[in-house]
Amino acid sequence: MYIGAIDGGGTKVLAAVMTEAGEVVARRQAAVPTQDHEAYFRRSAALLGECAAECGVALASLAGVGVSLPAMTDGLDRVLGSPSAGWGAFSVRPLLVSSLGLGSDRVFIENDVNACALAEMRFAQGGRDFVWMTVSTGIGGAVVANGALVRGAGYCAGEFGHIKVEFEQPRPCGCGGCGCLEAHASGTAIGRMAREAGLDADAKQCEALARQGNPAALAVFAQAGRSIGRALAMTSNVLNPGEAYIGGGVSHALDLLLPSIRETFGRDAIPQCRNMAIRQTRLGYEAALFGAAAVCLQGLAAEG
Amino acid sequence: MYIGAIDGGGTKVLAAVMTEAGEVVARRQAAVPTQDHEAYFRRSAALLGECAAECGVALASLAGVGVSLPAMTDGLDRVLGSPSAGWGAFSVRPLLVSSLGLGSDRVFIENDVNACALAEMRFAQGGRDFVWMTVSTGIGGAVVANGALVRGAGYCAGEFGHIKVEFEQPRPCGCGGCGCLEAHASGTAIGRMAREAGLDADAKQCEALARQGNPAALAVFAQAGRSIGRALAMTSNVLNPGEAYIGGGVSHALDLLLPSIRETFGRDAIPQCRNMAIRQTRLGYEAALFGAAAVCLQGLAAEG
Repeated sequence: MYIGAIDGGGTKVLAAVMTEAGEVVARRQAAVPTQDHEAYFRRSAALLGECAAECGVALASLAGVGVSLPAMTDGLDRVLGSPSAGWGAFSVRPLLVSSLGLGSDRVFIENDVNACALAEMRFAQGGRDFVWMTVSTGIGGAVVANGALVRGAGYCAGEFGHIKVEFEQPRPCGCGGCGCLEAHASGTAIGRMAREAGLDADAKQCEALARQGNPAALAVFAQAGRSIGRALAMTSNVLNPGEAYIGGGVSHALDLLLPSIRETFGRDAIPQCRNMAIRQTRLGYEAALFGAAAVCLQGLAAEG
Repeated sequence: MYIGAIDGGGTKVLAAVMTEAGEVVARRQAAVPTQDHEAYFRRSAALLGECAAECGVALASLAGVGVSLPAMTDGLDRVLGSPSAGWGAFSVRPLLVSSLGLGSDRVFIENDVNACALAEMRFAQGGRDFVWMTVSTGIGGAVVANGALVRGAGYCAGEFGHIKVEFEQPRPCGCGGCGCLEAHASGTAIGRMAREAGLDADAKQCEALARQGNPAALAVFAQAGRSIGRALAMTSNVLNPGEAYIGGGVSHALDLLLPSIRETFGRDAIPQCRNMAIRQTRLGYEAALFGAAAVCLQGLAAEG
């Protein structure tokens, strides 16, 4: 059985034909503009069509297609909005059905971080109760409890990036609030803290400097780690997850963040919740692509 | 169909025979010492036996019995510990089976706040995604997501009382940490804040003074409400619940807390999560008794 996976990003789309076990058979990537929904999904479908052709199969013969999107979704049909793609609310399934030529019972959508969590559960290490946190230019999250994704009453659970981690010296956040985790520990925040510390460096360069032992760069990661530790402790006291998986570009620097994450987490989480494991995801750069596959497989199973 | 409900407290036990619809047919209360587990559950069972006799039925003819306990439990058989009752870990079901004379498939246990959340869902207003918070001498909580209780990987989800709400001027908490919600907004904390404000009052008396317009007493509730608002905002950003139900003795003063809860919540929760309703539970003083009934009915349904 072949399935299709589309990881729709804010500027590019990654498409793959995969097996049920999560093995990638063919993969393509393309820059795709987001302004026009119809063109975006038509182009994504065409990219998947190229992958299918490479495997010698027709799009219509795929068992199903999963799509992960940089957007709030209802997990069924609708995008509810996406600041990064500049989308308002619209119905996705009809666009996918018409551009893929598949029935609506074989097309499935999900928010990209939620999809990563489903991939962690299906293809990697995730148990029945865990959280997934993407630390990238921004910070997003997903919650799995009792073996199922928690979307919340309004489909926006997992907004770890906007947990308040500073009350006295809060930095302004893109959400309009202050003191959010994202404003204190995202890649963007790490770059800003590096420049404030007199370093001519973005987050990636700050990481390189820290690895060379630069004290100012190390201090930036210690500070960001403290904020992540605070947010994980709060999350842990609320949900008691078995594991927290960290993905996104900044997760490559998790070793630099972990000492202060662990110190803060160990102090702020209640003793019974302190055994939560904090791990870099093994899904790597293409977590959301595996996520799209997991969304497809979960959807097919639910359809029976 | 009659069921039995036992609300086991740290000093007293409340027992009732109830209908499936949550109507109390007979109710008894007694002081019960917790030192000896066996005696505690034997006395609780005897109390329920008196209720049954009042209804003209035998204990053994009850469809099932639910027990809510002031303890961490695995929701199946074991108490994992209880600071308030002074309990370590032990197996409860055998004690209930022998003292009630019912099969182990008809006896069900749960943590008391978790039980309250199940009662909110079955008998009151709770939807599929909500949180329940008890504000009493301490602060406890429970999480419902996707229509099911979230216990967490180690059975201690919902520890809202130990979410950090103060980093700069944190007060010491009974858990050994600092800055916990419980140390800033529980009945105990309200009493201490009242005394620090020069009032000769515990939480109850502080409430009475606030209702008379005493500015210092009003300021204490405003301060406690701010802490609750911070914790609810964090919880909301993680779970996006539709509602937060507040129970426990201090919930009678919710009207005094709500202005500052709402002000803080409205600032600290992300816009998409701000429509969470914050309500006093309608379950009242006997929430955990209705909880025990809900635990029984859920258990019987699961047993098929």
